[in-house]
Amino acid sequence: MDFIKQFSDYTEKIEEYLDDVVPLADNYQSEIYEAMRYSLLSGGKRIRPVLCMAVCDMLGGSLSEPTVIGSAIECIHTYSLIHDDLPCMDNDDFRRGKPTNHKVYGETTALLAGDGLLNKAFEIIGNADVPDDKKILCLMNISTASGVDGMIGGQVIDLKNEKNADVSVEELKTMHSLKTGALIDTAAYCGAVLGGATETEITAIKEFSSALGLAFQVKDDILDYTGNEELLGKPVGSDAENEKVTFVTLFGIEKSEEILNELTEKAKSALDIFGDKAEFLLEFADFLLERSY
Amino acid sequence: MDFIKQFSDYTEKIEEYLDDVVPLADNYQSEIYEAMRYSLLSGGKRIRPVLCMAVCDMLGGSLSEPTVIGSAIECIHTYSLIHDDLPCMDNDDFRRGKPTNHKVYGETTALLAGDGLLNKAFEIIGNADVPDDKKILCLMNISTASGVDGMIGGQVIDLKNEKNADVSVEELKTMHSLKTGALIDTAAYCGAVLGGATETEITAIKEFSSALGLAFQVKDDILDYTGNEELLGKPVGSDAENEKVTFVTLFGIEKSEEILNELTEKAKSALDIFGDKAEFLLEFADFLLERSY
Repeated sequence: MDFIKQFSDYTEKIEEYLDDVVPLADNYQSEIYEAMRYSLLSGGKRIRPVLCMAVCDMLGGSLSEPTVIGSAIECIHTYSLIHDDLPCMDNDDFRRGKPTNHKVYGETTALLAGDGLLNKAFEIIGNADVPDDKKILCLMNISTASGVDGMIGGQVIDLKNEKNADVSVEELKTMHSLKTGALIDTAAYCGAVLGGATETEITAIKEFSSALGLAFQVKDDILDYTGNEELLGKPVGSDAENEKVTFVTLFGIEKSEEILNELTEKAKSALDIFGDKAEFLLEFADFLLERSY
Repeated sequence: MDFIKQFSDYTEKIEEYLDDVVPLADNYQSEIYEAMRYSLLSGGKRIRPVLCMAVCDMLGGSLSEPTVIGSAIECIHTYSLIHDDLPCMDNDDFRRGKPTNHKVYGETTALLAGDGLLNKAFEIIGNADVPDDKKILCLMNISTASGVDGMIGGQVIDLKNEKNADVSVEELKTMHSLKTGALIDTAAYCGAVLGGATETEITAIKEFSSALGLAFQVKDDILDYTGNEELLGKPVGSDAENEKVTFVTLFGIEKSEEILNELTEKAKSALDIFGDKAEFLLEFADFLLERSY
């Protein structure tokens, strides 16, 4: 298997679908659609939809269903970035090497573009060409993952974290498992549901995505210290500037790299039951470990 | 039929459900849940869920299903009010006689509380004890009504309206049919779907809710000129202050009252096919016409 080619095949389908489902508009809505597209089609890594597709693919499922459901999750991820960057939140000026949404379109339009993408996600799920029972399982899992008991809950803890350096490892893990992990978990879970996974398979995939999601965040923390600004598309050192507690502040770079390696191995081991079929996901875990942005 | 008693019976079920589905929390999420509850349980009129329940009731359906789906729509309505009041939007200090959400909890928490309520709405729908096919019809209709081609689209036009007094009657109607009408329409539609309405019945209910929604907005425009601040719970004259085009600026009070009466009659006539069973909804239309807040 050619990992890069497989990855491109997945992302090509996602880009095409997203471009289609959030189109250019030529009426009063032209600016809001443009703002939604600005952030949605700005070269994200598409980790979540790729994960959804790859899990379904591994199980022998079709690619069309996880392309749609994964793209809905990508809309939720993008809305969260737009709202996170707003002045009343992290007040960030750059994202993926480009000015943030509100820097280009203003706060009002950015707020509504975020709201629009969140709504669009559930519109996509509602209209997806997926059997009713699977669609509802995805809806239930995604809406919980993105809500106050999931991603938003993680944002709440993260904002407290900025004001309060007294954060334990357990709290840091809870924050990450909600803020970043929840959407990664739901992407993998939906891929499993769409691929017709058994209970045993779902348990294994949950173990995989749980370790992978935490590894992803540890890597983010490391990159915020050691990364290349040009590759990252945003300033490095922002965690230190905001006095945030991260894996690096708690453990140092060397130990954080060790934790990252352990988590990646743990994620990969969880896929043992799938044998050779897990080839792409195993390389995907290494790809996330080695990424430089 | 005792209209007031029936209305109270409906709203009691809604309040109970909302209180239950957005509970108090005692962990890191306590503030965000409190902020969500502050706006959700602050004495709204519950027009949308009552409409959903009453339509379903008229068709002989159970009350439990439209209580849940109507409450999801109320969560969407409440999120839209919280975001609408934010400094980067209308920058309002009072709503329903109380300080707005961001005045109490700050912009960051208010933004996330709005996001949380929008997510919660879809979580409620996903978990609702409603047959799969009906649930998905409701999901499709609600997500479109609340999205960029619905309510958010109306907010976009409304914000342009503030900066540009050159708004035609048609544009004003489009704005209202999206900003206020879309959620009212979807509440009635979902009530119809849950009540097992025929195509003919759905058409009649759509005619009813479409006229009712516009009448509701004309009344709002009138109240912004003639209303009692104490009853309204917010300052009157804010439309004039923001130089907004409204039915009153376009037609004057007298003609606006006439339009309001005509729309209410039109809404009521649409229910002719239901005979006596429409009694509550006919009184409901009059209640909205005569309301003083």
